[in-house]
Amino acid sequence: MENFIFKNPTKIIFGENTENQVGEEVGKYSKKILLHYGGGSIKQTGLYQRVTASLEKAGIEYVELSGVVPNPRLSLVRKGIKLCREHSLSLVLAVGGGSVIDSSKAIAIGVPYSGDVWDFYSKKAVPEEAIPIATILTIPAAGSESSSGSVITNEDGWYKRPVNSEFIYPKFSILNPTLAFSLSKYQVACGASDIIAHLLERYFTNTQNVELTDRLIEATLKTVINNVSIIMENQNNYEAWSELMWAGTIAHNNLLNTGRIGDWASHDIEHELSGIYDVAHGAGLAVVFPAWMKYLYKHDINRFAQFAVRVWNIDYSHWSPEKTALEGIKKLSSFFKFLGMPSNLEELGISDDRLEEMADKCTNSDTSTVGNFVKLGKTDVFNILKLAGN
Amino acid sequence: MENFIFKNPTKIIFGENTENQVGEEVGKYSKKILLHYGGGSIKQTGLYQRVTASLEKAGIEYVELSGVVPNPRLSLVRKGIKLCREHSLSLVLAVGGGSVIDSSKAIAIGVPYSGDVWDFYSKKAVPEEAIPIATILTIPAAGSESSSGSVITNEDGWYKRPVNSEFIYPKFSILNPTLAFSLSKYQVACGASDIIAHLLERYFTNTQNVELTDRLIEATLKTVINNVSIIMENQNNYEAWSELMWAGTIAHNNLLNTGRIGDWASHDIEHELSGIYDVAHGAGLAVVFPAWMKYLYKHDINRFAQFAVRVWNIDYSHWSPEKTALEGIKKLSSFFKFLGMPSNLEELGISDDRLEEMADKCTNSDTSTVGNFVKLGKTDVFNILKLAGN
Repeated sequence: MENFIFKNPTKIIFGENTENQVGEEVGKYSKKILLHYGGGSIKQTGLYQRVTASLEKAGIEYVELSGVVPNPRLSLVRKGIKLCREHSLSLVLAVGGGSVIDSSKAIAIGVPYSGDVWDFYSKKAVPEEAIPIATILTIPAAGSESSSGSVITNEDGWYKRPVNSEFIYPKFSILNPTLAFSLSKYQVACGASDIIAHLLERYFTNTQNVELTDRLIEATLKTVINNVSIIMENQNNYEAWSELMWAGTIAHNNLLNTGRIGDWASHDIEHELSGIYDVAHGAGLAVVFPAWMKYLYKHDINRFAQFAVRVWNIDYSHWSPEKTALEGIKKLSSFFKFLGMPSNLEELGISDDRLEEMADKCTNSDTSTVGNFVKLGKTDVFNILKLAGN
Repeated sequence: MENFIFKNPTKIIFGENTENQVGEEVGKYSKKILLHYGGGSIKQTGLYQRVTASLEKAGIEYVELSGVVPNPRLSLVRKGIKLCREHSLSLVLAVGGGSVIDSSKAIAIGVPYSGDVWDFYSKKAVPEEAIPIATILTIPAAGSESSSGSVITNEDGWYKRPVNSEFIYPKFSILNPTLAFSLSKYQVACGASDIIAHLLERYFTNTQNVELTDRLIEATLKTVINNVSIIMENQNNYEAWSELMWAGTIAHNNLLNTGRIGDWASHDIEHELSGIYDVAHGAGLAVVFPAWMKYLYKHDINRFAQFAVRVWNIDYSHWSPEKTALEGIKKLSSFFKFLGMPSNLEELGISDDRLEEMADKCTNSDTSTVGNFVKLGKTDVFNILKLAGN
């Protein structure tokens, strides 16, 4: 196990009707806020009305900024920063999924910064402060509701880049599983695939002696697999959504990578796909991850065999651990297929004419590598994309 | 799953040599502190010297209060409160195990309170503030390094009573697994038994649909069982201590009871044993818990069977789930025995002449019950103590 520091200060408020507490909770930090959300869906479901009623009851003024899209854009972030400064708003309340939350985090670090907020994403600067953020989660997926991360897409060149900072942990996040009832089957599947990917990125490590976190990740994976399967049959199953929603948060709040070094190559490769083609993050991951696995499982057959046995209940072959390892990868692919996810780039609507460009961008023209489990250069990334092709 | 709120603000600093960061970390909160510890063992191991060197380097003044004993006493807590007030000390640094940390927490809530600190433990008052606490953990066991709880024994009547308050989460806790190398085998076993008990108290619940937390608890239990077994063979195994130390924290930081109602009868019953007879908490729990299980496993045979199958790898008997359940309880008893823990009250040095007195005290003369899985009155507690007898 590696030395580590772990601290996650986000307060989780979990359960039915908890969105009605938002005004009271926000009031502990601010009386004038930015209310940030996506399209109109929160108005159709009545969530918008409940949230604004709670804010008004608590005497909280709010300025609205809607229009966040999947793979959230830098231009809207800049608009949010301007609004906060003009109206002296001192908290960003995100009502939505990971895109809305990530956009809110970008606004929150941008407001007190004198330079351009993209500096943080292009690694020219490091955030040193932020205005507070709070969230009401509507899509279990990104884990951004209790994470220190934010991913933003710069339309100028379609770069999709992450920031990590202790200053962007939400002060509180409200998780009401019923808010997910209205998602489309495709959104549910993309969300679950993202959660599974967060767990796998942490699972595939070279750190030795990580029994506790191995087992905690496996426990969370099994729970996600079982409960999203129930939801695919019955979208309004509160209990299954409770499991999936809480698992989605735990999958990405950094507890499960304490003392171990995760991989993250599949996320970096997927960022190139969704940066250029604007595909759904979860769908991209469902294509990239199995290809990544097939490309390099021989690096540690025992770890892949453990994954197969403990997560997928596959009988261990004492004569061919490799066979066991491969069966685990196959099970994962089949599961993504069962969820209705694409199996290859072709099904994602991506042809093979820009694979080299993506491999190049991902590795800064082959001057850097992605991933930790195996460090991948441009040729590796190209080969993985090729393998994901069709 | 039940609605819940989860927030744990303690910063964990984990790994070798991390105690040398204590001065710098303390300096973020205070320049004049109470250094609180037990007997002289931290001087023999050199920990005291490293801690005070780090404090001095950071310009932190400290007043010392040693002498904390297992089942920490109210009289020393009062002494600590007096010292903090006299010298204007604004943080309590606990260097030790759960007893030292619990004593520090009691001091921390006592300092700003105008009444007597026992008011909090006798439920006459609720803490509304505290001076900050920080810890350097030397014994993986109580989980107090990242919990909101403190248990103190009042020598006047030998009452052992708990307090829970959000104000007593440590600001930071330093966990260096090598600090546990010098523990006696008996201390190791008591610590592991306490950790196992914290997990079991959370596991046995009537809350339905708690798959994620069930699996996380099982993952943590398996890790504790595997790694304390390694430590019993080789006391200086850093990797095994890392697993056990981190598991001990996670077992009691409230993550594993999110959305579910734990039991806690065994802890309440054990508090009577250690209150009167001053036995080690872990040893008391190793005697009480299997007796509690035998007394009431029929309340939910499926849960006990799941415990047997998933934690102890027992084959499920489809013809007799009860047989499976009983095998799980037997495995737990055998494991406590393997650790060198007593199997009954007699081995703990407790005769049967005060069982009724303890049952009476535990249930406030049969006016209240203990436990949630099954609510136990005086007769139930007496029967469990009788079953634990020999």
